[in-house]
Amino acid sequence: MKKQKTNKKKIRQGSKPLSNKAKIASTASTVAALAKGKALKSVPGYEFAGLHCGLKTTGQKDLGLIVSEVEAKAVACFTTNQIQAAPVTYGKNILSAAQSGKLSAILVNSGNANAVTGKVGLKAVEKSAVAAGKVLDLAPEKILVSSTGKIGELLPTQNIVQALPRLSKKLSPKSALDFAEAIRTTDRFAKVYQLKGKIRGKSFHVTGIAKGAGMIEPNMATMLAYVMTDLEVSLPLMRKIFRRAVGVSFNAISVDGDMSTNDTAVLLSNGVSGISLNSAKSPGVATFQKMLTEVCQKLAWMMVQDGEGATKVVEIKVTGARNHSAARHIAYTIARSQLVKTSFFGKDPNWGRIIAAVGYSGETLDPQKVDIFYGPHCLVRKGLPTSLKQEQKAHRLMKGDGFEVRVNLHGGPGEARVLTSDLGYEYIRINSEYRT
Amino acid sequence: MKKQKTNKKKIRQGSKPLSNKAKIASTASTVAALAKGKALKSVPGYEFAGLHCGLKTTGQKDLGLIVSEVEAKAVACFTTNQIQAAPVTYGKNILSAAQSGKLSAILVNSGNANAVTGKVGLKAVEKSAVAAGKVLDLAPEKILVSSTGKIGELLPTQNIVQALPRLSKKLSPKSALDFAEAIRTTDRFAKVYQLKGKIRGKSFHVTGIAKGAGMIEPNMATMLAYVMTDLEVSLPLMRKIFRRAVGVSFNAISVDGDMSTNDTAVLLSNGVSGISLNSAKSPGVATFQKMLTEVCQKLAWMMVQDGEGATKVVEIKVTGARNHSAARHIAYTIARSQLVKTSFFGKDPNWGRIIAAVGYSGETLDPQKVDIFYGPHCLVRKGLPTSLKQEQKAHRLMKGDGFEVRVNLHGGPGEARVLTSDLGYEYIRINSEYRT
Repeated sequence: MKKQKTNKKKIRQGSKPLSNKAKIASTASTVAALAKGKALKSVPGYEFAGLHCGLKTTGQKDLGLIVSEVEAKAVACFTTNQIQAAPVTYGKNILSAAQSGKLSAILVNSGNANAVTGKVGLKAVEKSAVAAGKVLDLAPEKILVSSTGKIGELLPTQNIVQALPRLSKKLSPKSALDFAEAIRTTDRFAKVYQLKGKIRGKSFHVTGIAKGAGMIEPNMATMLAYVMTDLEVSLPLMRKIFRRAVGVSFNAISVDGDMSTNDTAVLLSNGVSGISLNSAKSPGVATFQKMLTEVCQKLAWMMVQDGEGATKVVEIKVTGARNHSAARHIAYTIARSQLVKTSFFGKDPNWGRIIAAVGYSGETLDPQKVDIFYGPHCLVRKGLPTSLKQEQKAHRLMKGDGFEVRVNLHGGPGEARVLTSDLGYEYIRINSEYRT
Repeated sequence: MKKQKTNKKKIRQGSKPLSNKAKIASTASTVAALAKGKALKSVPGYEFAGLHCGLKTTGQKDLGLIVSEVEAKAVACFTTNQIQAAPVTYGKNILSAAQSGKLSAILVNSGNANAVTGKVGLKAVEKSAVAAGKVLDLAPEKILVSSTGKIGELLPTQNIVQALPRLSKKLSPKSALDFAEAIRTTDRFAKVYQLKGKIRGKSFHVTGIAKGAGMIEPNMATMLAYVMTDLEVSLPLMRKIFRRAVGVSFNAISVDGDMSTNDTAVLLSNGVSGISLNSAKSPGVATFQKMLTEVCQKLAWMMVQDGEGATKVVEIKVTGARNHSAARHIAYTIARSQLVKTSFFGKDPNWGRIIAAVGYSGETLDPQKVDIFYGPHCLVRKGLPTSLKQEQKAHRLMKGDGFEVRVNLHGGPGEARVLTSDLGYEYIRINSEYRT
């Protein structure tokens, strides 16, 4: 590990700050490095494992485990979809029960979502948790279970139960990537991001592992994200900090309320760093918020980059809206327009589709004040097109694998950013052939 | 023309009632018949023309004209997009001005939308109307102008002005198809539908001509629809009847407020049949409402069938919702889901995507009461999957070019229907290459 120069530095080389184009390339190279089998030294106090237990027909890893060596505080955000999978119902129950807010392990399977499986599905979750509890010598209610994969098929728990002893033997602080592999479904690459920071001279870590592709609205491909830190953070503070981070990351790539049946994001803090954050005024809270947000945003970025068939990540930025909520609504209207997304795929600076989406968003605006930029190139000024030359420059910009589209309404202080991807042939191929 | 047996019969053979699968094939054959050059005898008192004036680079017809031999009463529905094209602004003005509610002619160009063109664009509309007025010996404010095509390019009015004398010479009651051809943009086929009916023993006619493809939400491809009758109908009654018809046709394929910059639907009544409908209680009002609704629904169906790259038309029916508005919202959430639409393309009875869309619609529901049918095949009963056999039957059904998906929530009297299309490679090809 390199010597720390600042109080916030990446554990691995190649990770660059989120918010410039270079990050896309850096993500890819990070993943390539991981794929070469480089062991991933993770946040202290956590162990990981992943293996194949027979749920995926491809023989790839489909069962993953995280164990914290000491009981960790835990907060979670679950899907707001009214049709929720059995593990989500179960997870909500154990986290809101008497022993609420504490977890020792997380067991995740891919290949089967255990969704729309009724009471039998709920029994399957309990059975998995009880079996894992026996093997790990933990109370079942300290084990969160997540599932992702096909909807409507019963979970073959016997595969999981039989594999658990083998899985627990594989537990290691260096196996985060095995876990990341085990939770993949249509993901093209495993998603891990880590940061190391210092508070009052002491080191602490934040590691995030996620799965999700095709998360862009309309969203049904499940997102799972597990973030671990060795800080000790009080539960109310954890909740507040995590909610903020999720709001500008996982929830800025997918419309609220527009989630899959299984979406789950969890934050664990096990305190092994010896640093405690007890209240919003504790020194270091801002540092932790910043690092946690960056980890979540980086994972969110990777999901969009991996968006089913995506060839580019586009950041839609809306400024000058009446308020933040209006800005967010307009940004989403642009971000989810099929016509806008196909124009990104075609490298066509079709600002007409952007301005029409702004117009049909339903938010009040003055059409004669609208400016539209593709990167630095202004294509619409005060509601009128600028020049063909600008369009040509924008076209060249769009050949890259990421860029920003900025809409300024000049009508207020509201701002919002949303990540989206392009929509191309590969999306159709993946999603029309998914089950056939 | 065939002898009338009932008071409501199609003018042309091959047109079958809207609401069974056969209608798709019949539409196509109708269009094929038209394409073979069969002259289309239209509603009495109207003349049509269409020609190429140089706006389309392909040499295809791009300027169309409808003239009513006597001044007609007129009502219109315009786009609710806040970014509205110059002809929409102009049209709203002339129809709400002192001479409101009366039109003698409609001039439509394709190839250029005259949208996002500012004051220059508005001048271009006026210039076109004045030039058409001179040629036709009509007051310019009695001429509605519509445009459809590329956004953000100035309308070359000289092409239109120069072509007008030639266009007026081509006017004929039999040239409705030339007009329909002239207003096409990405449409694969011209859209005309006619019905003939009787009120108190006298015949009357309703003819609709439309353009639109890829109208399914998110919607930006312009929809234009012109419906003509030889009834005389009072303006308030016309407004009421037209609004109802539009609500269950053009507005049931595209989310309210989610329209292009140019969308326009117009109803003209010139009274040459000698039948007057002065109030809601006049005999024949119900007959007219039914016929007008059928004409609009048939045109809407053709638009979905022609949806950019669509291979099938799917009717999403939601029943048992809390109320009609909730049903409509759920139906739209399903209808616009990219994942649902790609599953239609892949002939994959992926009810998991349907149920997840129902769940994230945000409407209250009891997941354990949800039934889902593909045609007659029940795939989900009380929130749980039925059998693989049913799925196989649904898969066979989906090989056709149209089917129904029905969701029953068993939670109230709310019902709604929405037409949607599948999402396949062709949509991507058309929309990513549109301007390149």
